[in-house]
Amino acid sequence: MVIRNKYTIALIVVLIITLSGCSCSRTKDPLSSWNEGPAKNSIIEFVDSVTDKSNPDYVLPAERIATFDNDGTLWTERPIYFQLLFAIDRVRQLAVQHPEWAVAEPFKVMLEEGPQALDGLDERQLIQLLMATHADITTEEFTQIVKDWLATAQHPRFNRPYTELVYQPMLELLDYLRANEFKTYIVSGGGIEFMRPWVEEIYGIPPEQVVGSSIKTKLEMRDGKPVLLRLPEINFINDKEGKLIGINQFIGRRPIAAFGNSDGDMQMLQWTAAGNGKRLMLLVHHTDAQREYAYDRDSHIGKLDKALDAAQKNGWTVVDMQKDWKVIYPAE
Amino acid sequence: MVIRNKYTIALIVVLIITLSGCSCSRTKDPLSSWNEGPAKNSIIEFVDSVTDKSNPDYVLPAERIATFDNDGTLWTERPIYFQLLFAIDRVRQLAVQHPEWAVAEPFKVMLEEGPQALDGLDERQLIQLLMATHADITTEEFTQIVKDWLATAQHPRFNRPYTELVYQPMLELLDYLRANEFKTYIVSGGGIEFMRPWVEEIYGIPPEQVVGSSIKTKLEMRDGKPVLLRLPEINFINDKEGKLIGINQFIGRRPIAAFGNSDGDMQMLQWTAAGNGKRLMLLVHHTDAQREYAYDRDSHIGKLDKALDAAQKNGWTVVDMQKDWKVIYPAE
Repeated sequence: MVIRNKYTIALIVVLIITLSGCSCSRTKDPLSSWNEGPAKNSIIEFVDSVTDKSNPDYVLPAERIATFDNDGTLWTERPIYFQLLFAIDRVRQLAVQHPEWAVAEPFKVMLEEGPQALDGLDERQLIQLLMATHADITTEEFTQIVKDWLATAQHPRFNRPYTELVYQPMLELLDYLRANEFKTYIVSGGGIEFMRPWVEEIYGIPPEQVVGSSIKTKLEMRDGKPVLLRLPEINFINDKEGKLIGINQFIGRRPIAAFGNSDGDMQMLQWTAAGNGKRLMLLVHHTDAQREYAYDRDSHIGKLDKALDAAQKNGWTVVDMQKDWKVIYPAE
Repeated sequence: MVIRNKYTIALIVVLIITLSGCSCSRTKDPLSSWNEGPAKNSIIEFVDSVTDKSNPDYVLPAERIATFDNDGTLWTERPIYFQLLFAIDRVRQLAVQHPEWAVAEPFKVMLEEGPQALDGLDERQLIQLLMATHADITTEEFTQIVKDWLATAQHPRFNRPYTELVYQPMLELLDYLRANEFKTYIVSGGGIEFMRPWVEEIYGIPPEQVVGSSIKTKLEMRDGKPVLLRLPEINFINDKEGKLIGINQFIGRRPIAAFGNSDGDMQMLQWTAAGNGKRLMLLVHHTDAQREYAYDRDSHIGKLDKALDAAQKNGWTVVDMQKDWKVIYPAE
C-alpha cells in the first residue's frame, strides 16, 4: 500500500474532525422552545459555569443533582391534580364492587358530581378517597392500573391523554441537563408509585430517580411467591418540608439545581440555595390562561405566594410561561 | 512537514491500537481473587447470559439492578456490627457532657465494660444507646463525625481501619458488575447516614444508591439557613421484610441479582428470585476462622440459618469464604 503525502494529511484531518465531533454546522439550540430572555439565559449561564473545568463554580458530574417538582412544573395540574382525577375514575370503576358507596360519603358525592365535588371534601375524606382507590392491591397490580388509566383517560379541557400535557420547554431542559451530565430527579408531592410507571418513557427519568409521597406496604406470600401489598396507611408526605427530608433520605446529596412552581416547592429551593457554590433555583409561573392556565397567589391548586416573594427577594429565576415559552405542549 | 510512508503506516497502526484498546495481551480476570469453582462460575455465567443480546435471558442495562447487603457481605461484621462500635466510642466521647451517664444505664455499663456489655442490653436499651449517639445533631454534623471516626478508629482484632476490612473479592464483583452496566446498590440494615459518607470512596457506590435504616429528621432554621436535625425516633428498619419494602420504595424496580450473608437478607433474595427471567442470588458463608470469622446457624450476629436452608432448597449460590476466596481483605 502506498500512501501519498497529501492524502496522509487529508486522512489525519479527517481523523481529527471525526474524533473531536463535527463543528462544521451551527449547533442546534437545546432549548429551542424557550424565548430568549432572562429565564433562558440564567439556565444556560448556570450550566456553562458548573460544567466548565476552568470555572471556580465547576461541579463534578457526580454532584450534578437536579430536582424537579412534577405537578405544575413538568406537566399540567389543572383543573385539579391528575392523580385525583385518576382516583375519581377509579371510584366509578370500583363502585360495582361497592354498592354501599351509593349512600356512603365521600363516595356518594364523587359518583354523583365527579371532580367538582373534591372542593367540598375535608382532609379526612380526601385521604379516605385516596386509600379506597390506591390501597388493598399489590404494587404490581397498581402499576398496571395506572398504565391502563393513562392509556385511555383524557383531559377534560384539552381532550388529550394526560401524558401529552407535559411541558415541551421542560422536556428540553431535562434533556439539556442530562446532556451536561446532570442526574435528573422528580421530587413531587404526588404518589411515587403513581409516577414511576410512566415517567421513564415520558421524561426519561428512571423509577429509581423518583421521590414522592407513599403509603405503607407489606410483604405477603401468594401461591408461594412474595408480593407487596399496598396498605391504606400514609407512609410519607413529600411536600414542603417533606421535600427536603425526602431528598436527604432518597438522594443523600444536596441538589445544585431545583425546579418548582408552588409554595410546596419553596423549602426544596431554599435547601438547594443553602449549599455552597453556584446554584439554580427556578419557579414556573403559570401566566398563560389561553394556552394553559393562569394562577398564583389565590389558587387552591398550586398556590404560588410565599415562594414568589422568596424568588423576588433571593433572585431566583421565575419563568413567565406566556412570555418565556414558545410552545407549551409537545403536540403544538 | 514531510511524512515518510513507513512512519505514516506506523502512525496509523498506533492510532488503531489506541482507539480499539490493546488486545495484544490476555484479558485480565476481573474476579482474580476468586478461586475457580461453582460460585465464581455461577456469577460469570449469569452476567454472560443477561448481557448477551442473543441470549433469551438478555436484560436491558437500565434493568440491571444488583443489591448488596453491607455488614458481613461487603465488610466484616465481627466481633459486632461496626456501627455499634462507633456508638460505644461516641458514648465515651460524649460522656464528658453527660455526667449523669456515670450512673444511668445503659450508659454506665457501656462506659465500664465497652463492647462486651452490648450482649446484655435489651432492645429498648439498644435503641436508647443508638439515639443518644446518632441524634440531636444535624445531618451534616453527623456525616463529619462518622468520617472522623473512620479516619482514626481501629478494629480490635486486625488493628486496621474498618474501611480496610472490606472483602477484596466483593470489590472485584462490584467492579465486574458495573463494567457490565449493572447499577450496584447497598441495601443494608445499617444506618443510611452512617454508610453514605464513605461508601462512594470504598465501594464506588454513590450515596443515592444506598438504602438503609434511618431515623426521622426535621427542618430547622439556623442563622437563616435550613438544616436537617436528626431526631431520636426510628423512621425505618431496613432488615428482613424491610429490605424489600426499602427496595420497592427507593429503587422501584426488582433487582436481578442480590447478595447477602444472613437470615436478614433472605426476603431480599426471595424477592429477587420471584421475578421473571434469569436471576442471581448469592450468600456469603463465613467459614474462615483463621483469615476472618466462622459462624452461621447459632450466631448472634449475622445468623445464617433459614437463608442457608433456602439457598440449598432453591439452588442459590453459596460462597464458602475459606475455599472460594484467595484473599479476604485488599491489604493481603
